[in-house]
Amino acid sequence: MAKLKVGIIGGSGYGGGELLRILLFHPRVDLRLVTAHQQAGRRVDEVHPNLRHLTDLRFAETTISEEFDELDCLFLALPHGESMTLVPELPDGVKLIDLAGDYRLQDAETFARYYGRPHASFHLQSQFVYGLPELNRERIGRAQRVANPGCFATAALLGTAPLIARGLIEGTVIVDAKTGSSGSGAKPTMNTHHPRRANSFFAYKAFSHQHRPEIVQTLRAVNPEWSERLILQTHSAPMVRGIFATIYGRLGRRLVWEDLRDLFQEFYADCFFVRLVEGSPDVNWVKQTNFADIGWAVDGQDVIVFVAIDNLVKGAAGQAVQNMNLMFGLEEQMGLVFPGSHP
Amino acid sequence: MAKLKVGIIGGSGYGGGELLRILLFHPRVDLRLVTAHQQAGRRVDEVHPNLRHLTDLRFAETTISEEFDELDCLFLALPHGESMTLVPELPDGVKLIDLAGDYRLQDAETFARYYGRPHASFHLQSQFVYGLPELNRERIGRAQRVANPGCFATAALLGTAPLIARGLIEGTVIVDAKTGSSGSGAKPTMNTHHPRRANSFFAYKAFSHQHRPEIVQTLRAVNPEWSERLILQTHSAPMVRGIFATIYGRLGRRLVWEDLRDLFQEFYADCFFVRLVEGSPDVNWVKQTNFADIGWAVDGQDVIVFVAIDNLVKGAAGQAVQNMNLMFGLEEQMGLVFPGSHP
Amino acid sequence: MAKLKVGIIGGSGYGGGELLRILLFHPRVDLRLVTAHQQAGRRVDEVHPNLRHLTDLRFAETTISEEFDELDCLFLALPHGESMTLVPELPDGVKLIDLAGDYRLQDAETFARYYGRPHASFHLQSQFVYGLPELNRERIGRAQRVANPGCFATAALLGTAPLIARGLIEGTVIVDAKTGSSGSGAKPTMNTHHPRRANSFFAYKAFSHQHRPEIVQTLRAVNPEWSERLILQTHSAPMVRGIFATIYGRLGRRLVWEDLRDLFQEFYADCFFVRLVEGSPDVNWVKQTNFADIGWAVDGQDVIVFVAIDNLVKGAAGQAVQNMNLMFGLEEQMGLVFPGSHP
Amino acid sequence: MAKLKVGIIGGSGYGGGELLRILLFHPRVDLRLVTAHQQAGRRVDEVHPNLRHLTDLRFAETTISEEFDELDCLFLALPHGESMTLVPELPDGVKLIDLAGDYRLQDAETFARYYGRPHASFHLQSQFVYGLPELNRERIGRAQRVANPGCFATAALLGTAPLIARGLIEGTVIVDAKTGSSGSGAKPTMNTHHPRRANSFFAYKAFSHQHRPEIVQTLRAVNPEWSERLILQTHSAPMVRGIFATIYGRLGRRLVWEDLRDLFQEFYADCFFVRLVEGSPDVNWVKQTNFADIGWAVDGQDVIVFVAIDNLVKGAAGQAVQNMNLMFGLEEQMGLVFPGSHP
Repeated sequence: MAKLKVGIIGGSGYGGGELLRILLFHPRVDLRLVTAHQQAGRRVDEVHPNLRHLTDLRFAETTISEEFDELDCLFLALPHGESMTLVPELPDGVKLIDLAGDYRLQDAETFARYYGRPHASFHLQSQFVYGLPELNRERIGRAQRVANPGCFATAALLGTAPLIARGLIEGTVIVDAKTGSSGSGAKPTMNTHHPRRANSFFAYKAFSHQHRPEIVQTLRAVNPEWSERLILQTHSAPMVRGIFATIYGRLGRRLVWEDLRDLFQEFYADCFFVRLVEGSPDVNWVKQTNFADIGWAVDGQDVIVFVAIDNLVKGAAGQAVQNMNLMFGLEEQMGLVFPGSHP
Repeated sequence: MAKLKVGIIGGSGYGGGELLRILLFHPRVDLRLVTAHQQAGRRVDEVHPNLRHLTDLRFAETTISEEFDELDCLFLALPHGESMTLVPELPDGVKLIDLAGDYRLQDAETFARYYGRPHASFHLQSQFVYGLPELNRERIGRAQRVANPGCFATAALLGTAPLIARGLIEGTVIVDAKTGSSGSGAKPTMNTHHPRRANSFFAYKAFSHQHRPEIVQTLRAVNPEWSERLILQTHSAPMVRGIFATIYGRLGRRLVWEDLRDLFQEFYADCFFVRLVEGSPDVNWVKQTNFADIGWAVDGQDVIVFVAIDNLVKGAAGQAVQNMNLMFGLEEQMGLVFPGSHP
Repeated sequence: MAKLKVGIIGGSGYGGGELLRILLFHPRVDLRLVTAHQQAGRRVDEVHPNLRHLTDLRFAETTISEEFDELDCLFLALPHGESMTLVPELPDGVKLIDLAGDYRLQDAETFARYYGRPHASFHLQSQFVYGLPELNRERIGRAQRVANPGCFATAALLGTAPLIARGLIEGTVIVDAKTGSSGSGAKPTMNTHHPRRANSFFAYKAFSHQHRPEIVQTLRAVNPEWSERLILQTHSAPMVRGIFATIYGRLGRRLVWEDLRDLFQEFYADCFFVRLVEGSPDVNWVKQTNFADIGWAVDGQDVIVFVAIDNLVKGAAGQAVQNMNLMFGLEEQMGLVFPGSHP
Repeated sequence: MAKLKVGIIGGSGYGGGELLRILLFHPRVDLRLVTAHQQAGRRVDEVHPNLRHLTDLRFAETTISEEFDELDCLFLALPHGESMTLVPELPDGVKLIDLAGDYRLQDAETFARYYGRPHASFHLQSQFVYGLPELNRERIGRAQRVANPGCFATAALLGTAPLIARGLIEGTVIVDAKTGSSGSGAKPTMNTHHPRRANSFFAYKAFSHQHRPEIVQTLRAVNPEWSERLILQTHSAPMVRGIFATIYGRLGRRLVWEDLRDLFQEFYADCFFVRLVEGSPDVNWVKQTNFADIGWAVDGQDVIVFVAIDNLVKGAAGQAVQNMNLMFGLEEQMGLVFPGSHP
């Protein structure tokens, strides 16, 4: 069968690096183009030495050329705020998957507030389908352009959607989320300086994380009657990979553990990448994979849901490839069925 | 001035090791006795090589002897459930500080439920004062016996007490707490096996952690009118030392950041070991110290309080020495004014 | 094409877990049997939760049954000393790959000295070919039974063999090797207790590591005229995966960096899994892969060679599968061409 | 007794931060002045939050003022190459301890080669005594200016000096040294980026580390007849603090473990900070302390010496304070007798 001709815009960061790690081995992908502004001309495996002996690609400039017209699919793995100036210039015929936050929010004001700048091409936002396959599989299958979810949003949504969909939660939902250092990107900063980070734990962006409106907007789509508040508090943990979300909610009525098991099983019946676990999930078991492990506990009307994902795979590049598979009618898990390691 | 004659029962674990690290340098302490059942006869610095060249002590058997009568103060650093059989045999004249949970809870049934066994000497519980100096300084000063708080309880109480005391919180309080691996003690287990723990994050003891009733009981003492629920969810983070607690509450009315600053400043005016910070605290800045760093964020009526402590110091051995200081009329911070390291 | 029917004896440890992680996705392997003495009856993915949704296998008892006769290939991933009692009972027709040290050494006395026990079936040792494909590819291809190299031996041999083969080294060779905590196996011990290991570095087994005679024996086969001493000093580093070997030697004559580049390029011309790097390799770039990255530096007659491998893949399970591929005439890298991750 | 008036030039880095951590608690030190070029005007505890509640000092500009004349002692904790332009302007009456490499080497050409620039004030070098107290105690006691040793040099010298002094080593000495990430300083770089460093091990500066000539020069002073080569190979380990040096040598005659025990015991008889251990030392037991733990192994004529220190304490700031104590006739260990923590 013919392979898809695929390109990556912004291949030098961690999101782009993970896309490379996956797409180079995808049986239906022919990776034609990888750009990286500052690294243009360098071999890909100089920037990502984990790929030595696995690719001879070189980074191209992030300049739109005729080459783009021949592509079937383009991944954008740029810093937030860069896609929105680039997308208007991209050829219409190429399917797009944007890993940044530029086209996720359906409200321009909310975007401006949370991302700290006005949107440069908001008229195009409605062309983008929100790419969380477990909630949106069919629309993604028909989409020309997909806005890939944020990493915290993915974890929060997978944990809350079944409960919100069934109208089981009353009052505020609290998402206490913890991320590994790779979530801060490939550029060294004080917060990722090893001497400081290695025995560190701290919170950041209280009441202001840009994934909050994305979660709320999506839950409202899941259940238009849901109108409660949601609090997202993000933290930095001294691990490299993974997000762990602890989600607190108040049930409208008393339930037991098995009730929620049935609910989650039904809701995620066709979802290969969701694994339901007894007790707590652990980022150790999802690291470097596209799996989302979900557990929960109930005490009367109090429920806690636990979600573990890898921030760069199910929270970014893996999910983007899952979206590509759906957009091109391929098997959803193609190229994504690999385990993490035990230790 | 005369030194206090001090003993430690159970000196081979991490709590006992930290007591040694502090007490050996306390200007008013003469450490006479350190016991350790399995290590009896061995040099202390064989078990705690960080103490080489700093002590010639050997571990004694944990057997009560005449030597105990000559002590002024005895620290119990035993696994949960061992103090309650030992204390009835201890001489009355020696002041006691118990680092375990045996005498913290004022209700025998609650103890039995959370600690999974009946109490062996509950009639003695009322002799114990709850040893959180920032809340209980005066009673500790008069106490003959002190129950040293749990590590999670210390963090949760320091973060919530000012708000509960002023009656500012309505509805459920949620404490999402994360601990380092040293909280699991000195004995290797699967959850602290380095290959597994190093990139791991998981929750444990949902709705069932034994520090929850301790927190609730203390908050009720702080404000007898407070009768809301409190949820404590504990997590294991891949760091060695530290607890980070994120506490969610709903205010009865809208407040701003400065209101809480004033509240915390007033509440902790005389508390050397509480440091109020802008933004988030970080366990990196409290590790290996007796400090508790507290920050907060407010959004209308929603408040989040962040607390960082070292689980083994302010959450155990350091606080125990702080209690000793108070019980013997010494300066509260004596022997405890040491910084952690930057990196 | 027909798949090979494969079994694993001892699938609950880290070596077995890595075999599972690889063999479950090998295009020519049908994994029929996985045993684990203590875990018999349990689902494989309960012991290795990274494999959830990827296998329904259950552990069988480690008892030889008729089922064994139908297998094409059997991997032994048992603790040192167990293979030598099991192998005599195994059916002759099944090809064997033993990951333990039992059949690597060609001298019974050396075995007894370094492994601390007499050999139980030394008469079978000569049936085993030493399974380092980069040195021994052809003999492995004809072998019925393979002794898979030790992790330190793999690193040391890949770094030294080209120099020894050409007779370039005079005098003692020193191998200073550092390993991650996964090298200690799946069973928690004091040396892998996270609170202790996370900021720890120490040496162990001075002049007595069992991989030393294995290295010497193999280098003597590479160049029968080489008769110098070799010192192997092993260390525990606070990382999870990886071995880094720093190898010091004295050249018979002055060489420059490019001379060694030519030497290594020629020696490893057909070796997909050896990657030659400028400067130093880094375990970060080989972790979770079957690659061995090699760099070097020269100063007059002094040479230092650096080798980085993943102890569990190229140092154990990956190399075992590479051997299987050769033994069955498959493409050498089949099932092993996967990258590690960048962060 | 009167306190020494002390200043620190360059207090914002890790060396300066450790000096602050120690000097603020030194019983005979009055810390008058701390400068930091880029942080001038800021509170010290904003840059080093571990010092909150422990100092009200603010960073001054690194400008020489009258204030300097009143000081008794000045520590220079600047990047390599800055002291040599500053020192000529400093008042003669103030005793100096320079933590950088500027005045360690007695040969201007060697300095230029290893530090990559010509020396700006080499005529002052002879005023500096090399500040390794265990080798140089008396000269330090009479010194007006001290060049504090490099971290790798400290570890290498403490391990080799007893053997070299007695003329026991023949042939090349090899020092394989591993350092934690704090050795790279407080400024984030790619090599200390947590996602990359956390599971990383690599070598650097092969045959070119600037501590090599410092080690050789000092060993030649220890034993003017020693004229062999010394190879220093440095590595980055994924820990925060500590250096572990593995030192390989060939003895002139066969010795046993006890011979070396006697040698080391005699050589370090009066050295409080040297702790001799059986087996291997471990950086875990010296982290955050001024101790140097030394172990060794012998096999016929082959000897391996193991040294563990904290790079920032015995390898920098702690040793600098030890030098200050000697220069002012104080007890050598004053202000430095604190243990590290067990976990």
